[in-house]
Amino acid sequence: MSRKLGGNILVTGTNRGLGLELVRQLIQVTSNKDHIYACCREPEGSGAEALRELANENPKRITVIKLDTAYESSISAATQALGERVGTCGLNLLINNAGINKLHGSAPLSATGGCGMMEVYQVNVVGPFLLAKHLLPHLKRAAEQMSLKHGGQGGHMSCRRSAIINISSLLGSIEKCPENFHIAPMYAYRTSKAALNMMTRCQAEDFREHHILATAIHPGWVQTDMGGKEAPLTSQDSVQGMLSVMSSLSDKDSGNHLDWQGNSIPW
Amino acid sequence: MSRKLGGNILVTGTNRGLGLELVRQLIQVTSNKDHIYACCREPEGSGAEALRELANENPKRITVIKLDTAYESSISAATQALGERVGTCGLNLLINNAGINKLHGSAPLSATGGCGMMEVYQVNVVGPFLLAKHLLPHLKRAAEQMSLKHGGQGGHMSCRRSAIINISSLLGSIEKCPENFHIAPMYAYRTSKAALNMMTRCQAEDFREHHILATAIHPGWVQTDMGGKEAPLTSQDSVQGMLSVMSSLSDKDSGNHLDWQGNSIPW
Repeated sequence: MSRKLGGNILVTGTNRGLGLELVRQLIQVTSNKDHIYACCREPEGSGAEALRELANENPKRITVIKLDTAYESSISAATQALGERVGTCGLNLLINNAGINKLHGSAPLSATGGCGMMEVYQVNVVGPFLLAKHLLPHLKRAAEQMSLKHGGQGGHMSCRRSAIINISSLLGSIEKCPENFHIAPMYAYRTSKAALNMMTRCQAEDFREHHILATAIHPGWVQTDMGGKEAPLTSQDSVQGMLSVMSSLSDKDSGNHLDWQGNSIPW
Repeated sequence: MSRKLGGNILVTGTNRGLGLELVRQLIQVTSNKDHIYACCREPEGSGAEALRELANENPKRITVIKLDTAYESSISAATQALGERVGTCGLNLLINNAGINKLHGSAPLSATGGCGMMEVYQVNVVGPFLLAKHLLPHLKRAAEQMSLKHGGQGGHMSCRRSAIINISSLLGSIEKCPENFHIAPMYAYRTSKAALNMMTRCQAEDFREHHILATAIHPGWVQTDMGGKEAPLTSQDSVQGMLSVMSSLSDKDSGNHLDWQGNSIPW
């Protein structure tokens, strides 16, 4: 797997859950020359202690960047901080992992309001949209670098070259909704993830000419603050699966929605 | 068609385009006992002259109600106004027609910002979501009325009995995105309509026990302010088709996305 992921990798929401585990395992599966940019809203806060510890243990491999995707000014600042570090090498992989499910529990209609709908959409869709837009020049640069290495030929897309991975959800599958609606109504979360899947497919079309891959990945139902304790999958297993999937992605996968085991999920 | 649509019908965004044409044709295809509640943001404004004229010509058939779905207070007020008029008969059909496409033209990535994404989502998804939530007691009442008429049995769902029609778009089809992305990138619009389709499917699951149908309909590419002059379809033909489709909807169509000719659109 290690040869298939590398370069400069940026992950959002890395102070806990899947984001923290992504950083932890990315360090293991990439080489000493590769670098992880671990973003979170409050790097100095009490909720980021584990991330700070991990970064302190791997000072040459991890750079923590403050990023709150709800504010475009924060996205600009994080993009600039990244740009100064990666220079002409660009950004090889953006993992939009940060996300919220405003309401714990099943979140039925009665518990869902307009503000909740808007907030979830902002964090789960608009944030990833703006971040990809701001980081696009760096993603393009990485894609071009690989092209230069191969004699200026286009070559194939991959997560090693230049890619956007949007962490989505099975609950964003419109097709599958009737199968799981009654155990998890979650209007706000579901609509946001369906929108994120559309955004991913738009990005795949939009960025193909730049050789940037875009794929949505469902991490499974994971034992995190969001997933709850009764979830069947550990963060470790989910991330191991997702990184294996990312390693294998190629042109044919751009614009699709896969689960952590590589299975295709219907829209 | 006339026997299949009727009772109390509420339509949003009726001061122009498809909404105005929906009111015009609904008057023709329903009976004298049926009533259309025509909502728009500014019933007294200069942009609502044609609607006022139509309402004045049909005072016993049309009631104009002020409604701006961007404000929950406006939704509450409109719901109360409707409730006072329909009483125990309830609301048979809600047509969520109001929608925006913030940017004219193809709306590429470079022209799309966070505020635009949020505004389009609010109008195209959160507005229809809140309106259905507020109107739910009236939709339930209409469904129950029909049940009582049939001896208390559940009976089948239909637009005559109790239904939510969300006006969606082919551009909200994630599956079809690669076919039309480059002529109309429209990230904000596409993500909002994919989310609206998810919402429709959630409503279909959620409200099935109340015998309320929920279906998304794509009106075609229509000659309106939004569609532009080069569109191939007139408002008249689109609405005629959509009303014919609404007339034919039954249990099997709830939670699906159909076009104005009744063809199924993939998610």
